[in-house]
Amino acid sequence: MKLNIAVLPGDGIGPEIMEQALNVVKAVCQKKGHELTYKYGIVGACAIDQVGNPYPDDTHELCMQSDAVLFGAIGDPKFDNDPKAKVRPEQGLLAMRKKLGLYANIRPVETFASLLHKSPLRRELVEGADFVAIRELTGGIYFGEKGRTDNGNTAFDTCTYTRAEVERILKLGYEFAMKRRKKLTVVDKANVLESSRLWREVAQEMAPQYPEVTTEYMFVDNAAMQIIQWPTNFDVMVTENMFGDILTDEASVITGSMGLLPSASVGIHTSVFEPIHGSYPQAAGKNIANPLATILSAAMMLESAFNLMDEGALIREAVAASMTAQAVTIDIADNKDKALSTSAVGEWIVNYI
Amino acid sequence: MKLNIAVLPGDGIGPEIMEQALNVVKAVCQKKGHELTYKYGIVGACAIDQVGNPYPDDTHELCMQSDAVLFGAIGDPKFDNDPKAKVRPEQGLLAMRKKLGLYANIRPVETFASLLHKSPLRRELVEGADFVAIRELTGGIYFGEKGRTDNGNTAFDTCTYTRAEVERILKLGYEFAMKRRKKLTVVDKANVLESSRLWREVAQEMAPQYPEVTTEYMFVDNAAMQIIQWPTNFDVMVTENMFGDILTDEASVITGSMGLLPSASVGIHTSVFEPIHGSYPQAAGKNIANPLATILSAAMMLESAFNLMDEGALIREAVAASMTAQAVTIDIADNKDKALSTSAVGEWIVNYI
Ligand SMILES: CC(C)[C@H](C(=O)O)[C@@H](O)C(=O)O
Ligand SMILES: CC(C)[C@H](C(=O)O)[C@@H](O)C(=O)O
Repeated sequence: MKLNIAVLPGDGIGPEIMEQALNVVKAVCQKKGHELTYKYGIVGACAIDQVGNPYPDDTHELCMQSDAVLFGAIGDPKFDNDPKAKVRPEQGLLAMRKKLGLYANIRPVETFASLLHKSPLRRELVEGADFVAIRELTGGIYFGEKGRTDNGNTAFDTCTYTRAEVERILKLGYEFAMKRRKKLTVVDKANVLESSRLWREVAQEMAPQYPEVTTEYMFVDNAAMQIIQWPTNFDVMVTENMFGDILTDEASVITGSMGLLPSASVGIHTSVFEPIHGSYPQAAGKNIANPLATILSAAMMLESAFNLMDEGALIREAVAASMTAQAVTIDIADNKDKALSTSAVGEWIVNYI
Repeated sequence: MKLNIAVLPGDGIGPEIMEQALNVVKAVCQKKGHELTYKYGIVGACAIDQVGNPYPDDTHELCMQSDAVLFGAIGDPKFDNDPKAKVRPEQGLLAMRKKLGLYANIRPVETFASLLHKSPLRRELVEGADFVAIRELTGGIYFGEKGRTDNGNTAFDTCTYTRAEVERILKLGYEFAMKRRKKLTVVDKANVLESSRLWREVAQEMAPQYPEVTTEYMFVDNAAMQIIQWPTNFDVMVTENMFGDILTDEASVITGSMGLLPSASVGIHTSVFEPIHGSYPQAAGKNIANPLATILSAAMMLESAFNLMDEGALIREAVAASMTAQAVTIDIADNKDKALSTSAVGEWIVNYI
């Protein structure tokens, strides 16, 4: 099979972890006889520095022509805490989501037995938690009309959803639920928001088309509590953009395995695969960052963009083996003195494959 | 001193827990020689049933003429899961907040040593957590323009904040911080929302007036993680209405003491004191609900609405004693067979006083 991917390392530790993930993809393709073509693009703070735009047209063209995008992380402290900065790395991320039509962000929330002791939750509560959080990514208050009136003294943001947007993401939610334990939790604030009432209406209309799936409705404040109290109760959770931003981050922290969790952003034109962690600027260039979440994002890419299930499974097996062998970076090593570097972990996994 | 209060028991377990809290207030007033006047008002589902309005004008008048309002809980399952219901108990709550100008909801997040084992978090993380979460309560997306266009197929909600609204709540945040450990965490989403950028601008302008206070800015998604990971790092947290709805519920759950946490909603015309838990309809009429959060809300009322610090302290002491003596309801009793009823706990505390 021919795989044509765009590689966007981004900022901070992005380039280091991406190098290892790419090596892993190359190794798998070599072993299984796939032809891999890839091109690099710039995005984020480094793109602002180079061309003044966090998501340059060249990068967009590259993504549009690719079957899938492998993405590192973006963000640089020099742009933080300046509410008046004109160009910010995050704008690149938002532009990329909008232009590529990345309407759904999918985050598997999984626990790894060997990392359960790192969870802030009591072990017996979080053990066995295994759900998928689906966040709508191109609508809602992120992209609605916003601005100032009254000489800048009043600010507003608008949250808008259309029936078509809601149907599209709920359909994805139901499809995931059908492949899993057949429970879909629709999270909204229908007791206050009109947009949430539209979500709930559409869900209630669609539910009968999936008779095997149990549809559950939950207010967002309640969901924020249940994720901590009974994380094993969830199977597939679907919600709008802003709620999803908050809840998916909350959900990822309970596993204790932030450095291991991948994500996919499913799009109209292409799909983007990236670790959920950030650009970790303090660690940049030190060859200490954990590459596993990016490597697992590559597995997710092979599986969902190319339907290469065996290839994805091979990567997952290699990652599990590296953890069993304690061939891991310092953040998750039991014995910090025996921790490996970013590149050594990547090499270990490539050798295994 | 003369205390003139409105008593709104509400729905579900509201009447039972309110009876005990009121008895405790009476006992304190008797002991300390204060003259207590109180009148009952209806609110919530019971008000819809009786007069078709969840916050009737009579109740509003009563609140307006009171120095403080003691509130139970509202909500009834028969109104849930019906996105098209015309009148809902929650509307009463929102109307009350708006009409009484209850602009700030204040929730102390405290742990009780004897309840730490009920926290979903690992003990060493949550032990000693002690912060105040302040939520803006009459602005933002809750009260902005909302509606449908495109034959009902597009729904929108508007989040609006004015400089005056933001200044008012931040001022309260700084005042709390000054009385505590002098750290204020302003939670927003200034990398995406214009309203959040206004919040951050105003905070940056006000910060120099409180040189002793360290102002920290945190994105809401990050805050949702930090509340679980490092709850002891917070002192005073302040945020807008919708984020506050989510984060204050998340924060209350980490203590393991949901049944014990009081809250205050500070208003222009009067202030409302209520437990953070809900109307718990399954337990209504069974004399098993925990009255301590309502009793502690009464303590908060005496302290903040009437500046009766000793009286508040006396109630807190009595509550602590009841817990030490295990004179508590079944939800927090070590030995379930020896649990007391709602009224027995109230009587124990009244006797102690
Ligand atoms: C950087 C920011 C704009 C972004 C978001 O809020 O979507 C981030 O928090 C995320 O979740 O990917
Ligand atoms: C019932 C609902 C409208 C309310 C809110 O969202 O404010 C509740 O969740 C709360 O936090 O008091």
